[in-house]
Amino acid sequence: MPLFLDNHDVEQLLSMKTCMEALEILYRELGEGKAVAAPRSDIHTQTASERTAEAPMAHYLKTMSGATPHFGTAALRFSSDIVAWRSAGGGMRREKLPTMPGNRWLGLVLLFSSSNGELLAIMNDGVLQRMRVGGANGVATKLLARADASRVGLIGSGWQAGAQVMAVCEARRIKTIKVYSPTRANREKFAAETSRLVNVEIVPVDSQAEAVRDVDIVITSTNSRAPFLGPEALREGVHLSCMQRDEANDDALRRCDPLIVHTHLIENDATSSNLRKYDRPGFELKDHPLKRGIDWKALPTLPDLIVGRTPGRESDAEITGFVNNLGVGAQFAAVGAKVYEAARAQGAGRELPLDWFTQDVHP
Amino acid sequence: MPLFLDNHDVEQLLSMKTCMEALEILYRELGEGKAVAAPRSDIHTQTASERTAEAPMAHYLKTMSGATPHFGTAALRFSSDIVAWRSAGGGMRREKLPTMPGNRWLGLVLLFSSSNGELLAIMNDGVLQRMRVGGANGVATKLLARADASRVGLIGSGWQAGAQVMAVCEARRIKTIKVYSPTRANREKFAAETSRLVNVEIVPVDSQAEAVRDVDIVITSTNSRAPFLGPEALREGVHLSCMQRDEANDDALRRCDPLIVHTHLIENDATSSNLRKYDRPGFELKDHPLKRGIDWKALPTLPDLIVGRTPGRESDAEITGFVNNLGVGAQFAAVGAKVYEAARAQGAGRELPLDWFTQDVHP
Repeated sequence: MPLFLDNHDVEQLLSMKTCMEALEILYRELGEGKAVAAPRSDIHTQTASERTAEAPMAHYLKTMSGATPHFGTAALRFSSDIVAWRSAGGGMRREKLPTMPGNRWLGLVLLFSSSNGELLAIMNDGVLQRMRVGGANGVATKLLARADASRVGLIGSGWQAGAQVMAVCEARRIKTIKVYSPTRANREKFAAETSRLVNVEIVPVDSQAEAVRDVDIVITSTNSRAPFLGPEALREGVHLSCMQRDEANDDALRRCDPLIVHTHLIENDATSSNLRKYDRPGFELKDHPLKRGIDWKALPTLPDLIVGRTPGRESDAEITGFVNNLGVGAQFAAVGAKVYEAARAQGAGRELPLDWFTQDVHP
Repeated sequence: MPLFLDNHDVEQLLSMKTCMEALEILYRELGEGKAVAAPRSDIHTQTASERTAEAPMAHYLKTMSGATPHFGTAALRFSSDIVAWRSAGGGMRREKLPTMPGNRWLGLVLLFSSSNGELLAIMNDGVLQRMRVGGANGVATKLLARADASRVGLIGSGWQAGAQVMAVCEARRIKTIKVYSPTRANREKFAAETSRLVNVEIVPVDSQAEAVRDVDIVITSTNSRAPFLGPEALREGVHLSCMQRDEANDDALRRCDPLIVHTHLIENDATSSNLRKYDRPGFELKDHPLKRGIDWKALPTLPDLIVGRTPGRESDAEITGFVNNLGVGAQFAAVGAKVYEAARAQGAGRELPLDWFTQDVHP
């Protein structure tokens, strides 16, 4: 009988420590070619709710999958959203609207057994998604930051930033964290709440420059679509940990050696022709990368690093960098397996009738 | 509340006529670039049940997706199977094993609303899969066969062949069907059962040559991995309808003008390195195409044909051909929408709690 696990269940069942342990094993397996990840598939089509040319909307179906022999699992993650482009700050921002009854979103992870193929669990993807993003940066920090790194500068105070803090605190013995984000109330609330969570002092500061001054690790955790962090933020010996592609600018990334990316996979896009007119800067149909001076495909990946195909930090003076450029479905297979294992051990979740989902005809 | 619809429900709710009508609309939308289909994603990894180098097994997770603005739906179809290679007839055959409890398979279609993104239905994929395959060939036959075509020669008597018969009988006023398959008992049983279903005489015959003699439409519906049908099977004016790529040989396909394929999409593969050793003739990890003399990508597609970008039959003497080379996820969005609509109208299926599948955190 498959288990249904909601976000609350996942939050109770998964620690960042466990998440990072699972991801370390996964990246090793990916580096060895045993675990696999398929390219993400993005579909955008016209929605009946499309509004105007100035504020277009689309239906967006995203899927990604992957499998890990070590954990004996495969995962399919998908989300179905109405996305809209809204004016926000300096430009247009793409937003997922909570259009389900009760103002909710739809994103699920299906976990399969690779022993017999059966559906083991259906999970909300929100908490898992946040943990595996933080965990990926955490694993990279563990491999790349100086051994004695203890001071963190964090740019961003959203929900994802909390997982970045949990992860960096797993990777190193962190003593202080400074956090900057544009809205004072947000960074103060974040500092107070997250400090209690990780039992580390978190100090809200008034500028990005102040946040990154005299720290050992710089973390960016924003949804920016325009790079905002330059090389002046990177002092000798620092480790730069970017949650996504468009945070550190080209000059900053060029200061990093080694500079590691998460994956070489890219998304497969399928978009209705009548939406393509919106696919221009400020109206990107999706969060695709800006034209950048960095050749991502030429950079080594986290799996390359973990199996030793590419060198890591070689001196305390080096500036190292990691860009979590795109997630992979295999993360959900590895981390999902740990959640499932814990749920079974603790009797968590609700059972679903498996025979509903199987069939007696050969498909 | 999403509906769960099993194969029995789908069978009751979907006629071949409705299926072909939905596909015709879809192919037009695909031809216009409004509907979209993403490439299929195939993942093969080592399974704990792997046996020996001579009879390897793998876990196989397949996903495909697509969306159609006309129907206001998107679909994600996936299957999770243990596949094994077994000696069969002249070579090795790849089989999906019924490894779920009760000797069952796992394949599902998730149907989403592109108005608000919600999950409308979860359906077993077996009957839908068969109908959309038959329906695709049926739409092509409707567009390409001579208007007065009435005699059919069918090679193959499996489960899929039944849908091919239903489809050809929708496309033209068929008077007689001859069927050949290697095992006499199978073709006789198929002829008796399917004849009752479509109310057309179906005559089992003793050879392929006899089946295709003096007919207007030749249908191949087999799981052959080696082309078996040559140009001698194609008399003047005939329409050739192939259910998959490796049935008619290159010379036979070169006789067809026009020769239309279903799609230019190809699968994305991700395979564990320790399985790749099996990826050779006779042990293909998947049913990938043989090296053929036909450049599939250069051929017009069914969407091209339906919107008039490529000519159809121009005389009664021409030999026309259609190869259903690969399915696309968008078929499930279109045909699934009709099934869902009928289910709602008739009160069929079982309701699932939608709030289980949605979440209040922004993913």
